[in-house]
Amino acid sequence: MSSDKGQTEVRRVGIAGFGTVGQSVARLLCSGRYPNLLLTHIYNRNIQAKKVDWVPRRVVWTDRVEDVLDIGVDIFVELIGGLSPAKEWIEAAIIGGKSVVTANKQVIAKHGAELCTLVRQGGTALGFEAAVGGGIPMVRGIQQGLGSDHLIELVGVLNGTCNFIFDRMESAAVTMEEAVQEAQALGYAEADPSDDLEGLDAQAKIAILSAVGLRRPLTPTDIPTRTIKSVGQMEFRQADKLNYVIRQVSRVAVDNAQGDQVQALVTPALVPKSSRLGQVHGAENIIITRGKWGGESAFVGLGAGGEPTAIAVVGDLLSIAEDTGTSTAMRFPVSESTSRVSKECISRHYLRTPTVLSHGMNSVPDRLKRNGVEVEKTWQESQNSGQSFTLVLTGLASFSVIQETCGEVERDLKDGDQCVWLPILDESPKEH
Amino acid sequence: MSSDKGQTEVRRVGIAGFGTVGQSVARLLCSGRYPNLLLTHIYNRNIQAKKVDWVPRRVVWTDRVEDVLDIGVDIFVELIGGLSPAKEWIEAAIIGGKSVVTANKQVIAKHGAELCTLVRQGGTALGFEAAVGGGIPMVRGIQQGLGSDHLIELVGVLNGTCNFIFDRMESAAVTMEEAVQEAQALGYAEADPSDDLEGLDAQAKIAILSAVGLRRPLTPTDIPTRTIKSVGQMEFRQADKLNYVIRQVSRVAVDNAQGDQVQALVTPALVPKSSRLGQVHGAENIIITRGKWGGESAFVGLGAGGEPTAIAVVGDLLSIAEDTGTSTAMRFPVSESTSRVSKECISRHYLRTPTVLSHGMNSVPDRLKRNGVEVEKTWQESQNSGQSFTLVLTGLASFSVIQETCGEVERDLKDGDQCVWLPILDESPKEH
Repeated sequence: MSSDKGQTEVRRVGIAGFGTVGQSVARLLCSGRYPNLLLTHIYNRNIQAKKVDWVPRRVVWTDRVEDVLDIGVDIFVELIGGLSPAKEWIEAAIIGGKSVVTANKQVIAKHGAELCTLVRQGGTALGFEAAVGGGIPMVRGIQQGLGSDHLIELVGVLNGTCNFIFDRMESAAVTMEEAVQEAQALGYAEADPSDDLEGLDAQAKIAILSAVGLRRPLTPTDIPTRTIKSVGQMEFRQADKLNYVIRQVSRVAVDNAQGDQVQALVTPALVPKSSRLGQVHGAENIIITRGKWGGESAFVGLGAGGEPTAIAVVGDLLSIAEDTGTSTAMRFPVSESTSRVSKECISRHYLRTPTVLSHGMNSVPDRLKRNGVEVEKTWQESQNSGQSFTLVLTGLASFSVIQETCGEVERDLKDGDQCVWLPILDESPKEH
Repeated sequence: MSSDKGQTEVRRVGIAGFGTVGQSVARLLCSGRYPNLLLTHIYNRNIQAKKVDWVPRRVVWTDRVEDVLDIGVDIFVELIGGLSPAKEWIEAAIIGGKSVVTANKQVIAKHGAELCTLVRQGGTALGFEAAVGGGIPMVRGIQQGLGSDHLIELVGVLNGTCNFIFDRMESAAVTMEEAVQEAQALGYAEADPSDDLEGLDAQAKIAILSAVGLRRPLTPTDIPTRTIKSVGQMEFRQADKLNYVIRQVSRVAVDNAQGDQVQALVTPALVPKSSRLGQVHGAENIIITRGKWGGESAFVGLGAGGEPTAIAVVGDLLSIAEDTGTSTAMRFPVSESTSRVSKECISRHYLRTPTVLSHGMNSVPDRLKRNGVEVEKTWQESQNSGQSFTLVLTGLASFSVIQETCGEVERDLKDGDQCVWLPILDESPKEH
């Protein structure tokens, strides 16, 4: 350890991608608060249209990424998103001896181990705090703060867009389409919100947290991931009566029954109103950790938005400038193989189907019972349109048997009708 | 940056203090989970009585601290508590070229800046994550995770003992004396619980967080700090009716009106049931941060107990072993002077006095009004004993005017009777 560490050796920072987050990062870097971080380059396609007047004259505006990957930059900030060419640019920067900071969950979820190996070999740093949980320091909190614990479960709300949509459906009784439009108007959802609604965004994030928290790297696409699109106003009304709310939940846990397996899923679910998950509102995110020694901890905050995400990016930049930032890459587990994902999670479940089954057909409760699932409660509800629905609460059952039963039921329904299914995630038993 | 960082260079660890936390740290270090941390020395007074059989034979048991401060140890873990000789031992270790990890909130609150300067000069590391918030990585989360933000307020529940006591008084309707005894039986409170009940423990913790989060070092004893001992069952019943609960709250905030001043306090207070502070139960702790850019974030978890605290100690040890641990000391602001503390916090207030004022004396509401305080509501309540109390809710008023009024009222009361006063801390307006 040398004694001059932490001194203000100035690092030159180049940003690739000048969208919402890139602009917030630039604003922070130009605020005068960080004397050892000097913004020198901004890359974007069609850069002339992107220029702003609040950036100092010394900054080079360019639409050639080669300029930012050149020797004039010490730290490369990747904010273009998507798998390619982002991954190739990050690789080129590392090979060129630069440290890298990225908010790219897809690249880290899929190529994190590979990139971290490259970084270790080169002796630079890779920071990806901004890839998960926006402004909440989840990666640092889990990896360094709780790095000495033996974590056994991570469960959270990791997509601020879905949470905003559910919050609006719950509090303002709007339809999902209306809530999506509101989210788009406020900049919480993109023009094509599929990655959020289908759970792919949360899938990448929980895969990253599994690697850094449980040290179990997962192939993101192995994680059972369910759309939130089937959730309607009916679900919010029923959940409310049962003292639950609906959240898009991401979870990964060590499977005690199966040595190297993990349980993992991303799904809309009923969670108790009074639970930590139930109390996350608007664009907030939360991650709850359960550790063998430290019990339950939780990190909550704004999971989306340019400014919170920029805080995470600049936090990584500061760590690298102060030479304390290599740890992110250091603690990313590198293994040839990823852990196997168990699809056999067990919980209670909520099901809703149109009441259209004709005489002689199997009712949903009958089908469930025949598949060995206990039916706790069943009742009918009508929509304003007059359509009648059958609702069922089950006892404990595995996801696969419920999925199978829903499939059977849907084969009896007319096209477009569906069996809406939400697991009920009551709080796991606490360690203490 | 060298390329061999993060490799498993083994560090020899010596523990001074083999109480609850020391034993949990030793258990973790002997678990085989941390190949680069080697427990070599354990110091305690009367060491023969402390020996346990689950520690490897190589470990030196000693009642001479000089053995642990010797060259055979790389990292000195100070867990004896109290100001002296803990501070002198930490100094001796740093001067001797060792890194230090401590759970000692009193030493860091009072001497943190001085010790961090010493560490910087010597090029070693000082970790004190365990001094605040038990197993919750508050120091790291605030200092590194949110280090790029401009934090303007920190508010939390920082003493697990007081929170446990209040939780029991609320949920089991026991007296404070009974709750203290329960806490002692469970190991949450010491034989002499004064530091917890009088708020001195929380005072030291919020002083540390002010330094690392707001970069405003405070002299701990400057922080207005109020005992929880005056809080009775009557307060819990009234709070419940008003939809509040009672928590020992610690808060520090930048005072916008007064440039370099900060507002700071430790006090029992009414907080909304549905607020983050209100939802912290048992021995849990929470810190809520408000930042100019990142908005509101919160860290929650177990704030007391040997194992959670040991997680924080070993987390610091791992950071030092991986050479990423100097940052704690690096970011501790060193300044000749500490910030001034404003005593002019403003909130609504709850007051309770015995209804014993004779005709012609000023009633509490009258006194409040004469001192310029708006009275929102006043009512009478009787205890089982038949004693009658006058209760008052005020509008917004400064702490000093309420304190003054309580003083006036108490001069009219008979010895032993008091004016119970709790501020009502409704949630601060959120940034987003």
